[in-house]
Amino acid sequence: MSINLIQCRQTAEAAIAKAVEIGIPMNIAIVDEGANIKFFVRMDNAMLGSADIALKKARTSSLFNRDSGDIGKLSQPGGPLHDIEQTNGGLVSFPGGIVIRDDTGKVIGAIGVSGGTVEQDFQVASAGAAAYKD
Amino acid sequence: MSINLIQCRQTAEAAIAKAVEIGIPMNIAIVDEGANIKFFVRMDNAMLGSADIALKKARTSSLFNRDSGDIGKLSQPGGPLHDIEQTNGGLVSFPGGIVIRDDTGKVIGAIGVSGGTVEQDFQVASAGAAAYKD
Amino acid sequence: MSINLIQCRQTAEAAIAKAVEIGIPMNIAIVDEGANIKFFVRMDNAMLGSADIALKKARTSSLFNRDSGDIGKLSQPGGPLHDIEQTNGGLVSFPGGIVIRDDTGKVIGAIGVSGGTVEQDFQVASAGAAAYKD
Amino acid sequence: MSINLIQCRQTAEAAIAKAVEIGIPMNIAIVDEGANIKFFVRMDNAMLGSADIALKKARTSSLFNRDSGDIGKLSQPGGPLHDIEQTNGGLVSFPGGIVIRDDTGKVIGAIGVSGGTVEQDFQVASAGAAAYKD
Repeated sequence: MSINLIQCRQTAEAAIAKAVEIGIPMNIAIVDEGANIKFFVRMDNAMLGSADIALKKARTSSLFNRDSGDIGKLSQPGGPLHDIEQTNGGLVSFPGGIVIRDDTGKVIGAIGVSGGTVEQDFQVASAGAAAYKD
Repeated sequence: MSINLIQCRQTAEAAIAKAVEIGIPMNIAIVDEGANIKFFVRMDNAMLGSADIALKKARTSSLFNRDSGDIGKLSQPGGPLHDIEQTNGGLVSFPGGIVIRDDTGKVIGAIGVSGGTVEQDFQVASAGAAAYKD
Repeated sequence: MSINLIQCRQTAEAAIAKAVEIGIPMNIAIVDEGANIKFFVRMDNAMLGSADIALKKARTSSLFNRDSGDIGKLSQPGGPLHDIEQTNGGLVSFPGGIVIRDDTGKVIGAIGVSGGTVEQDFQVASAGAAAYKD
Repeated sequence: MSINLIQCRQTAEAAIAKAVEIGIPMNIAIVDEGANIKFFVRMDNAMLGSADIALKKARTSSLFNRDSGDIGKLSQPGGPLHDIEQTNGGLVSFPGGIVIRDDTGKVIGAIGVSGGTVEQDFQVASAGAAAYKD
């Protein structure tokens, strides 16, 4: 099962609501469990260069079934996965990409957010990833 | 002036409504006047390979301020713009990419649609491009 | 549902058997329903440049849910999908890519074959695509 | 002399057997002495993003006639080959890529494995690289 359009809208709306709440316009990308783009929105005045980052964060999470930031803990100089960012057409290994799971815990896609600090990106992505399960 | 998020939503909703009406799930991409991705949706069951095509149609229209199909009339073998599709990271020169204008006629972005026949793609893109001005 | 490894082996073995029968060493690629590589084999003495072609044929079929050659009928100069080969990182639109379906008819992946004439490629791909359903 | 299909099968089967033994589904790629793809298998449920990594590990080993992890010792910040990962379309410099030699010690190809920890990847690749010589 892959994330569907209704779930994408719920995810994106929750992320946008959080972005508005903290006052940072964001780029928000959602991919399916095969890392293919399913939904994307660049909020007005969001950083242009962050569009590609949002998409790559979502792809990174979907490709490895984990938060993008978890990759970054392993890819530093001297780390076991140093420079893994070179693979798969370019990965992003800092926070802001989060897997989306269905009610059974199965990964059905991922959300990637970029436009603020990595803490803000992670906060907005988390709000999105948690949304449709309520 | 670039297309804003409210206009993107109106554009996308009108395109989706038309896609539902004709029964063809579509990929719908909207870019700003700088040919940068602003909004994207892959409807459930839409052709996977059409996602990239929808985005390239929108970019082609925005990059050249005209419908993607107008480029195709000039890019055929022997034509004045033969093989222009090789440029700009890949263009799509058949119908389904349409410029979006504001009330004064100024181009503020473009929509690209892919998933059906080129006639269906053009029909859905046209519904989207006409939407927010009503 | 995506094609699994057992089905890949059956598919590849049937294709290899046909390639041996007609005496043409082939490149054989199998992708899942998300167009991601699942299995690949380059037979000894198979044309080196055909490896990428086999993979792109399989990807083309999976991305558009149809034989690669069906795309080629529409992508010629003057055709409705002229130069669609520029999209999705490069498509191959001549025969030799065939969708693989499960018993219910659902597409679960695709096979791409390259190394001989397009007729030979298609023959070997067909043998592969038909294999695991027996 | 380049690795042939029989040797590829032996190599891949030994790697798969080890992967099953340790309970980690893996991506396994084999390239020839020219760093060109010869054989590939993604085991069921293997990490999707590891497919490209497995292939790049194999290519890295073949291109430089040494284990991928040996490159990583030299490519760290301040090291003599810093950022060599940018070359050749993308290298992977952590363990899991191993050269394959014939009975005389000559390199005839390489295997790349990805899907687990780097220790697991290396273990499975080693099992593969050692296989056909027995």
